[in-house]
Amino acid sequence: MRAKHVSISPAIDGQEIFALLREDLAAIEREFGRDTVSHVEAITEIGEYLRRGGGKRIRPMLLLLSSRLFDYQGRGAIKLGAVVEIIHTATLVHDDIIDEAQIRRGRPAANTQWGNSKCVLAGDWLYMQAFKIAVEERNFRILDTLIDLTQQMVEGELLQMEKLGQLISLDQYFDLICRKTACLFSVCMRVGAILGGATPEQEQNLAQYGRNLGMAFQIVDDVLDLTASEDVLGKPVASDLREGKVTMAVIHALERCAPEEREKIGAVIRDRAFNGVSHGDILAILKHHRSIDAAHQRAMQYATLARNAICNFPNVEAKRVLLWAPDFVVDRVK
Amino acid sequence: MRAKHVSISPAIDGQEIFALLREDLAAIEREFGRDTVSHVEAITEIGEYLRRGGGKRIRPMLLLLSSRLFDYQGRGAIKLGAVVEIIHTATLVHDDIIDEAQIRRGRPAANTQWGNSKCVLAGDWLYMQAFKIAVEERNFRILDTLIDLTQQMVEGELLQMEKLGQLISLDQYFDLICRKTACLFSVCMRVGAILGGATPEQEQNLAQYGRNLGMAFQIVDDVLDLTASEDVLGKPVASDLREGKVTMAVIHALERCAPEEREKIGAVIRDRAFNGVSHGDILAILKHHRSIDAAHQRAMQYATLARNAICNFPNVEAKRVLLWAPDFVVDRVK
Repeated sequence: MRAKHVSISPAIDGQEIFALLREDLAAIEREFGRDTVSHVEAITEIGEYLRRGGGKRIRPMLLLLSSRLFDYQGRGAIKLGAVVEIIHTATLVHDDIIDEAQIRRGRPAANTQWGNSKCVLAGDWLYMQAFKIAVEERNFRILDTLIDLTQQMVEGELLQMEKLGQLISLDQYFDLICRKTACLFSVCMRVGAILGGATPEQEQNLAQYGRNLGMAFQIVDDVLDLTASEDVLGKPVASDLREGKVTMAVIHALERCAPEEREKIGAVIRDRAFNGVSHGDILAILKHHRSIDAAHQRAMQYATLARNAICNFPNVEAKRVLLWAPDFVVDRVK
Repeated sequence: MRAKHVSISPAIDGQEIFALLREDLAAIEREFGRDTVSHVEAITEIGEYLRRGGGKRIRPMLLLLSSRLFDYQGRGAIKLGAVVEIIHTATLVHDDIIDEAQIRRGRPAANTQWGNSKCVLAGDWLYMQAFKIAVEERNFRILDTLIDLTQQMVEGELLQMEKLGQLISLDQYFDLICRKTACLFSVCMRVGAILGGATPEQEQNLAQYGRNLGMAFQIVDDVLDLTASEDVLGKPVASDLREGKVTMAVIHALERCAPEEREKIGAVIRDRAFNGVSHGDILAILKHHRSIDAAHQRAMQYATLARNAICNFPNVEAKRVLLWAPDFVVDRVK
């Protein structure tokens, strides 16, 4: 991958961005709240629990920013901002059942509170609700895009399941994180572009931006899972290894390490537990091969590709935020 | 409920109907097969397993017949026939996970073969695939109808879960079977009507037909669960009672029986097992209060309502089949 550097617009800081998006994000939050009310109490309860669990709302933000590049003023970005967050939430509920997750965002995972059965149905309901609201926009291209996306994500989760406990290649890893994260980021940008009336080329560039940002985001997420503390993560450290998931830094180390190091990593992945090999042992191996740095480097390359993809858009405020976001994503510590 | 009798057109038999629908049903089967192929092998495998498991294909048949009342000739009825069967299949996969079903249609349930996690995802994928094909029809009313339906069904399953092991009322029972079965039957008729360009009144009548037929169908299904043999059912007898589900005949008996009889039924529902009370004991109670007959009677009333709902349609072949179907549904033994 070759990533040329582009000049960055004057810096923008978190507060400015918050001010810029505050009203719309609050509207999306209200829309999300309204959208997840059902006659069936358990659904409303689970929906409320998930919504209050927070999350960075990065996906609706991307959709908003993308639409703002075209000075889009309609309510579609609010409604579809809620839609992408609801789809994201539905995937999390089903993924947590599959991963037997105990904790999500620092709280008990919904499946531990309501049981798997209700959470399967709540996830189904959320998917349908997302599509119900999306259909109200009466835009077939948006529906095609969202449905395609959801299938990609579901397929990605299944592929990941099949690869648990295996030492996958870097290409397999990139395919998985693309389906898991980058596809949705890309769709958020694309939907904003469709709402804004983008040309096919503009839409393509924005989708590229989202895809590359998503790749950077997930690589960093996976590094943080290895390096950050439980307090910061809101879940146990090295959850991925404990679930038998091999991520970028680990793959990098595996491609370079000595047989005895390989055996240590392999044991954790196989056992899905730290038996006789500590988390510190694994970190030492990763540091020795500069694997954490290598993952960061790759994330930075994706970040640069993201910025490059939007270099031709006029220099409006939304663009400044979009140029800033990749650095934020790569440099974040949580 | 008052159900006046309407004169029935000359009888039609199973073979004639098969001849009438054979080509279209074969086309739907091919469409279903094509629609459930994914890059991810596990999805294709599960989809194929489910499709080959059979089922009566009564839902696509209804959709076809409804569209034929209007002499609809397009390919939409084939595609949407597959869609309603795929939605039905997706609900079954998730329901079987929830009910911890061992057997479905005489074969091991998919969850026992692939595990719950893969089946959660396969169900998600099937839902999305159904909507993907439905979106291709480029008809928003059909999408609204299908999405609404799916939510109703998911909510119904959740309501049923919450009522497991409880002695529900007849009204609660009718609400549950409406969501579980009658809504989908109704939607099949409605979608056929929309394709055929029905007037709002015609669409309403056909939806009524489907709803009433579905109610009759599920009441009889629930009676057969109590009375038929395992060979005929393709699953253990009295599965509903074993799962803590109270159905029409049982509710009828509970409203009339002596305290000691009530205690026996209550024990099975509570324990979700026949401990000290046999299946024969329960059947004896139901027979004593003519509860099986009462359920059949109610099914026949719904069947009559179904026939009445379409009395004003011109006397084409599809109408003859639709007039015949309610009797078939009520009189079937499997």
